[in-house]
Amino acid sequence: MRYPEGLLRVSRALSRLPGIGPKTAQRLALHLAFHREEAKELAEALEGLAALGVCRVCGNLAEGETCPICQDPSRERGVIAVVETVADLFALERSGEFRGLYHVLGGALNPLEGVGPEDLNLESLWDRLEGVEEVVLATSMTVEGEATALFLAEELKRRGVKATRLAYGLPVGGSLEYVDEVTLGRALEGRKPL
Amino acid sequence: MRYPEGLLRVSRALSRLPGIGPKTAQRLALHLAFHREEAKELAEALEGLAALGVCRVCGNLAEGETCPICQDPSRERGVIAVVETVADLFALERSGEFRGLYHVLGGALNPLEGVGPEDLNLESLWDRLEGVEEVVLATSMTVEGEATALFLAEELKRRGVKATRLAYGLPVGGSLEYVDEVTLGRALEGRKPL
Repeated sequence: MRYPEGLLRVSRALSRLPGIGPKTAQRLALHLAFHREEAKELAEALEGLAALGVCRVCGNLAEGETCPICQDPSRERGVIAVVETVADLFALERSGEFRGLYHVLGGALNPLEGVGPEDLNLESLWDRLEGVEEVVLATSMTVEGEATALFLAEELKRRGVKATRLAYGLPVGGSLEYVDEVTLGRALEGRKPL
Repeated sequence: MRYPEGLLRVSRALSRLPGIGPKTAQRLALHLAFHREEAKELAEALEGLAALGVCRVCGNLAEGETCPICQDPSRERGVIAVVETVADLFALERSGEFRGLYHVLGGALNPLEGVGPEDLNLESLWDRLEGVEEVVLATSMTVEGEATALFLAEELKRRGVKATRLAYGLPVGGSLEYVDEVTLGRALEGRKPL
């Protein structure tokens, strides 16, 4: 049997999303075909994304020119956390431990895939360093994230700004038994007096 | 931080879908916020669902009055498979083994949740029994699906139409070791000469 074209179209659009395989996409499309009010709500929400822009200061999502964080007078303006993506920014916000501002790179250095410094949101970072005391390099603990952090650390040093890096170590609640040996080695290296 | 309202709206709409938790919904919403052409494609596809109706003969999804299966002259018109949902119909179609027509009940009997025969798409089934030699009861192998199959078997007997039920047994590729004992018992009961 040929599936109805309208259903296939929804299924195809869903299967382009990360982590949604063709089977899940078909299941969701069928669900939406039988729950029209949910489909309508989702379609309208998606259209609402058009009103979302990017903060011209930090690269976070913004409803106006600048994002809620850059606008917030209670945030420390002398500390900037550099992150790869807005998803990483949200993750740091959820920790509730960071009170400074952000800068979203839009990726990490990846010479193999041809991503160089000129492909990242860097010029605007250099432009906002005045009065900044510390830049927290909060890129991922991957090869690309590490390379990016090292590159930024050197550039910041040249510009006379202190750069720090997120700590390596064991995840909270993590059992030693299941942690990989490289992480465990780094946790030992970074041990602190109690 | 307050997330942008436009993003929250997409995230909420996605988290209403089955199997999509709040974390996945937020991840997908962020992806869509940064891949506007995918968001647009999905929104348009969802709006296209409005053109999808239900086959007035069998209850399958249809782009016109009747569905592609009911319209197909090569399908055997003397055999009808009764399924709970369109998803089940699609599953049977994927097997490629069934060449008859379908009838979608829109659920299964469930007295605990107050689903009785009057809540299922049954009247239209009785109306199409003329010339039908066999009704394959392809409801699920759950308590509700079994109860529905038993109920339908009796009703069909009263109307002089042969009813058959899908076979219980081991899944293809399934190892005996991991099959539950009830299924294994049914597979033994249903054994066939080779």
